[in-house]
Amino acid sequence: MTMPGTRAPEPGRPTMRAVVYHGPGAVRVDEVELPRLQHPRDVIVRVTRTAVCGTDLHPYRGELPGFAPGTVLGHEFAGTVHEAGAQAPFAVGTRVFASDVVACGRCTACARGWHYQCPAVTLFGYADVVGTPLAGGQAEFVRVPFADVVLAATPDDVTDEQALFVGDVLTTGLAAVHGARVAPGDLVAVVGAGPVGLLAGLCAVTAGAARVVVADPTPARRDRAADFGFTAVAPEQLDEAVRAGGGRGADAVIEAVGTDAALDCAVRAAAAHATVCAVGAHHSTAMPFPTGLAFARELTVRFAVGDPIRMRAPVLALIRSGRLDPSRIVTHRLSLTDAGSAYRLFDRQEAFKVVLCVDPPTPPA
Amino acid sequence: MTMPGTRAPEPGRPTMRAVVYHGPGAVRVDEVELPRLQHPRDVIVRVTRTAVCGTDLHPYRGELPGFAPGTVLGHEFAGTVHEAGAQAPFAVGTRVFASDVVACGRCTACARGWHYQCPAVTLFGYADVVGTPLAGGQAEFVRVPFADVVLAATPDDVTDEQALFVGDVLTTGLAAVHGARVAPGDLVAVVGAGPVGLLAGLCAVTAGAARVVVADPTPARRDRAADFGFTAVAPEQLDEAVRAGGGRGADAVIEAVGTDAALDCAVRAAAAHATVCAVGAHHSTAMPFPTGLAFARELTVRFAVGDPIRMRAPVLALIRSGRLDPSRIVTHRLSLTDAGSAYRLFDRQEAFKVVLCVDPPTPPA
Amino acid sequence: MTMPGTRAPEPGRPTMRAVVYHGPGAVRVDEVELPRLQHPRDVIVRVTRTAVCGTDLHPYRGELPGFAPGTVLGHEFAGTVHEAGAQAPFAVGTRVFASDVVACGRCTACARGWHYQCPAVTLFGYADVVGTPLAGGQAEFVRVPFADVVLAATPDDVTDEQALFVGDVLTTGLAAVHGARVAPGDLVAVVGAGPVGLLAGLCAVTAGAARVVVADPTPARRDRAADFGFTAVAPEQLDEAVRAGGGRGADAVIEAVGTDAALDCAVRAAAAHATVCAVGAHHSTAMPFPTGLAFARELTVRFAVGDPIRMRAPVLALIRSGRLDPSRIVTHRLSLTDAGSAYRLFDRQEAFKVVLCVDPPTPPA
Amino acid sequence: MTMPGTRAPEPGRPTMRAVVYHGPGAVRVDEVELPRLQHPRDVIVRVTRTAVCGTDLHPYRGELPGFAPGTVLGHEFAGTVHEAGAQAPFAVGTRVFASDVVACGRCTACARGWHYQCPAVTLFGYADVVGTPLAGGQAEFVRVPFADVVLAATPDDVTDEQALFVGDVLTTGLAAVHGARVAPGDLVAVVGAGPVGLLAGLCAVTAGAARVVVADPTPARRDRAADFGFTAVAPEQLDEAVRAGGGRGADAVIEAVGTDAALDCAVRAAAAHATVCAVGAHHSTAMPFPTGLAFARELTVRFAVGDPIRMRAPVLALIRSGRLDPSRIVTHRLSLTDAGSAYRLFDRQEAFKVVLCVDPPTPPA
Repeated sequence: MTMPGTRAPEPGRPTMRAVVYHGPGAVRVDEVELPRLQHPRDVIVRVTRTAVCGTDLHPYRGELPGFAPGTVLGHEFAGTVHEAGAQAPFAVGTRVFASDVVACGRCTACARGWHYQCPAVTLFGYADVVGTPLAGGQAEFVRVPFADVVLAATPDDVTDEQALFVGDVLTTGLAAVHGARVAPGDLVAVVGAGPVGLLAGLCAVTAGAARVVVADPTPARRDRAADFGFTAVAPEQLDEAVRAGGGRGADAVIEAVGTDAALDCAVRAAAAHATVCAVGAHHSTAMPFPTGLAFARELTVRFAVGDPIRMRAPVLALIRSGRLDPSRIVTHRLSLTDAGSAYRLFDRQEAFKVVLCVDPPTPPA
Repeated sequence: MTMPGTRAPEPGRPTMRAVVYHGPGAVRVDEVELPRLQHPRDVIVRVTRTAVCGTDLHPYRGELPGFAPGTVLGHEFAGTVHEAGAQAPFAVGTRVFASDVVACGRCTACARGWHYQCPAVTLFGYADVVGTPLAGGQAEFVRVPFADVVLAATPDDVTDEQALFVGDVLTTGLAAVHGARVAPGDLVAVVGAGPVGLLAGLCAVTAGAARVVVADPTPARRDRAADFGFTAVAPEQLDEAVRAGGGRGADAVIEAVGTDAALDCAVRAAAAHATVCAVGAHHSTAMPFPTGLAFARELTVRFAVGDPIRMRAPVLALIRSGRLDPSRIVTHRLSLTDAGSAYRLFDRQEAFKVVLCVDPPTPPA
Repeated sequence: MTMPGTRAPEPGRPTMRAVVYHGPGAVRVDEVELPRLQHPRDVIVRVTRTAVCGTDLHPYRGELPGFAPGTVLGHEFAGTVHEAGAQAPFAVGTRVFASDVVACGRCTACARGWHYQCPAVTLFGYADVVGTPLAGGQAEFVRVPFADVVLAATPDDVTDEQALFVGDVLTTGLAAVHGARVAPGDLVAVVGAGPVGLLAGLCAVTAGAARVVVADPTPARRDRAADFGFTAVAPEQLDEAVRAGGGRGADAVIEAVGTDAALDCAVRAAAAHATVCAVGAHHSTAMPFPTGLAFARELTVRFAVGDPIRMRAPVLALIRSGRLDPSRIVTHRLSLTDAGSAYRLFDRQEAFKVVLCVDPPTPPA
Repeated sequence: MTMPGTRAPEPGRPTMRAVVYHGPGAVRVDEVELPRLQHPRDVIVRVTRTAVCGTDLHPYRGELPGFAPGTVLGHEFAGTVHEAGAQAPFAVGTRVFASDVVACGRCTACARGWHYQCPAVTLFGYADVVGTPLAGGQAEFVRVPFADVVLAATPDDVTDEQALFVGDVLTTGLAAVHGARVAPGDLVAVVGAGPVGLLAGLCAVTAGAARVVVADPTPARRDRAADFGFTAVAPEQLDEAVRAGGGRGADAVIEAVGTDAALDCAVRAAAAHATVCAVGAHHSTAMPFPTGLAFARELTVRFAVGDPIRMRAPVLALIRSGRLDPSRIVTHRLSLTDAGSAYRLFDRQEAFKVVLCVDPPTPPA
């Protein structure tokens, strides 16, 4: 059996522990073959911290039927350089974190800063959903291709846990804020109080939002949003919340879920001439879109994937200045070996954000 | 019977001829009461040229069941100042043209240049579809409210026929070009080869489009588009046309129809990171929108109404410099008294754009 | 003697107390004629709080030789509506504050939001330096022309003292931030630690600055800047401060002084491709500008006056949300009758920002 | 003697003809050593067409005292791939043209599209004025470093002569148009009727300028500008020309000379809120800048170097569509061996733009 993105250990080859997908609901920590450099631009990273992302739940919940068993999961991780190819400008031992989006950095798309449009684009640990399969970072070690582009050094005053968020959800939050054209003084609506929604809300405050209203159907998530200082409402109340007291609606709207209902809710909250930025991963072919309303209000709707390669520098600056701390959203810190529990807790919404701590690995043979 | 937007003549009151809606398919030139100044900011314009717009066909075709019989039609017109209120800074006899969008120019929406969002917004000759009813300009005379904002002087080197286009479809064309972020060198796709589509195409060339591809299901309209120098294709061929030879799709897309199918076609033609600007009047509550495709390509979709008040100055400058001539789209010039024929020809697509010439009126008593 | 901007009281006419300029170094509280409505758009405001601005020191210091004695000074004020013209939509008793820039709100410049370019532009209490003379707001009462445009209501949860800053220096601070294109994560340099500089620094933080470095030659001002959480340095150290540790310079630079030396300092601090926004009032005809450096770094230099009419809404929203409090810069609160002391303290830099509190006036006859 | 940028031929090494600088006024065609690949990303281009740029006159006129004798001149060239390094993705024989700006394409500056800010930046044939010396393209062969970034393929329907302009002055023209924010309908002023000024004027028309006014002190240059359809005036008349008939000045201004006087002229022509884009190469440390005027008009002044790497794609699209033809500015086409005459004619302004045609070289040994 060929397992995309990883290798079953051959006798005599060094191995490591990794979180492996075995089918819906079945995630286990297996012993798999240690990744090796395959190209001069590759780096092998020894992982110290890795997180479970909402995206990881899609295969776990069976929503991606073709997702290949054997895939090492995970695209949020940080660690240190274990081995570097000749064209990868990182010294062994350097603290680093990766972008979840993998891109070549050499093509015309990359030259425009559009890394998700790179013909070689792929995601760590996501089978062949986007691009060619690549083993993920919920493991002791991970191979990072195009490391001169995909990896960045973690500054001394940034923890590995903070850094791993820079490689995905926190830069997505800032992308949402830029995409929705948040300006100082704005009333900002955020649809979805998951990790991306809350971090987008924090980014909106950082960018000058006077007020952030977050909509989510789950009471516990609304409580958390309220703890972050946001006004939290049920989705069906969002429209009223942003128009209370004669208000004209949200000046900027961020949609952080990826469903038809969430985008519809976001569009309805928008004030005239506002921009709605959808950073939830959308897959619909026929979302029922209210064009009449969008035309009457002269709205702009922007779809944005997020791009850690392009946006990690300002996000790191904000963390270093103390203005943003993504660790605020972490509710559980478990050992890599407890990955099975982590997925269960996260799937049941008993955990909001789980970070897996990787024990110092046994030295590879 | 109360007739919105006009008045049946009372005995002894001065009258004029006007194009009056009497129900689907029924448009007649009637003798109606001459409009009078009602507010110090009003101007009464003596119309010289007026045109029939695609929007006028909606009631004619029975697509707006509640449209009030008795409405004087028309929102594209130019003429001269016949009478001016005390706060309307126009001398009698000044050549002028009107914006189709009527706005107060005083509120916070107007202060931001968002005239279509003015609480007092209305359209000439469109019953109560938008705002309060206001008699239209397919008449010998028309009352223009907020004339200091809604009217503009027609420069000596611009004809009345050219000017009437500045008040609607030509500024919509330029709004589309701005909304779609057309830049020099772009491949621009336009969905819809009606008057707005072709003028938008001309505006796109003016703004630097290297090539314009226009999609329309009607062969005669495609022929006309080709005559304008555009590549003309059927909608189902647009996708292929903008990706021929390895092309990545259209850098900017303009949707100038207002239907679900047209917007879907426009979105599919867009290259990654492109902007689609919809200036067709959309009314759908559940257009089947391909969010998966829009997310994968990181698209921006902008809905824009067009705004002659804000954009007439640059459009006039382009006409005066000889760079844009909207008269190129006129196929028929008829007398106001032939308005019935005009609507019939236009409805059957036997005329592409009809201008009605108003004979010097009999001097009002 | 004709006194621009005010009137000597005539016998039998109601009077009020006002701060009157009598020449360099000579500012006194005089009894002058109470202003009267002159136009239907006028409002007479009963002033409660007014402040002394750095701009007021120019005549005081004799830097404007032609400045007319007899001028009632002051352009920063808030209060309540005492009397309103027929076209001024404010009820008597409404709490209001004024824009320092007075503009008609009706011309093409105003329609574009360029109020300082209005042909009718003037400033309160600034003789004929800009536009026609208009008595200022350091008085018990002040006439506000174009009040429907120039005045705004003070929200219940905003104090009069906060509101008066919205009418000048705080919106200038936000204009600087927009003009310099401050984005989340930026290193922002501010030249000048006066009231505008510090408020611009606060606005920069509000807009996402990761770090703000303020340059000023005065140690006491640097201390104050440090108290606000900024890095404070002498101007000659700014270049090094923004490039310490391999930094590439400031991502955005705000110049808040208005001298040649300050602008030169600002330009030198700028990183490649940065924008420098000068909101200091510049008057030079031949500032020695380093074009070679600006070209090599591909800089943008923007001059911005600030515009409370256009920008007061977001600034009010930020105050109401608790994100900005301009009262932080006030060091002295004196009675209007102590205006002479206020000018002296301010001129000697013994006061940083002085607010004058107007006692309830004796009821005008 | 060490000659930067080239090598004196060693006995037995293959040679070629090249235009070599020997000091002010002394430019000769010498036999020099054929360039060789030095790095896997290098390409050796066999030059077919190369041009003399105004920048080349600076050393010729003795304005750059330290300019190294022995330098092979020229940064505008096109040709075919003669030899390609292992990491240079070009087949031998491919038609190509180079960017005058040489950048690595790998650093953080390049990743933002700021190639002129690359730490490895250099220019062909410009000694050590910018970056490390690199032999120029006025030669039979030239070594192109970072060829995967610096070179681009010449499309079949673009001539080598057209292509060489894309590598420098034509993309500078488009950069000027973008930098000055030219929009459809604008009145655009251009200071300088040299090759860059005229091409910038053409680009401004392509981007929608309603009218272009060009200022130049030389009557012959004004005649040429008039032939291109521009209004041509002396610099001292520009201010009046853009304000004739009550005009408010130029909506966008392009400065294409690089002197203090030219930039001063450009700033004075600008309308309120306009942007002035300086693409002339500025070197002043103390240009007398009218800050008072710039502040009163709230101007933006942007310095832009031009960047063929970033902007060649849209420029090629415009040439291919027939909308721009840079060959219109060529007045003389001479043989490479006539380079001495070319420099003389150009220096005396007897030639406006000279292209040197390279004879098929003798096959290198």
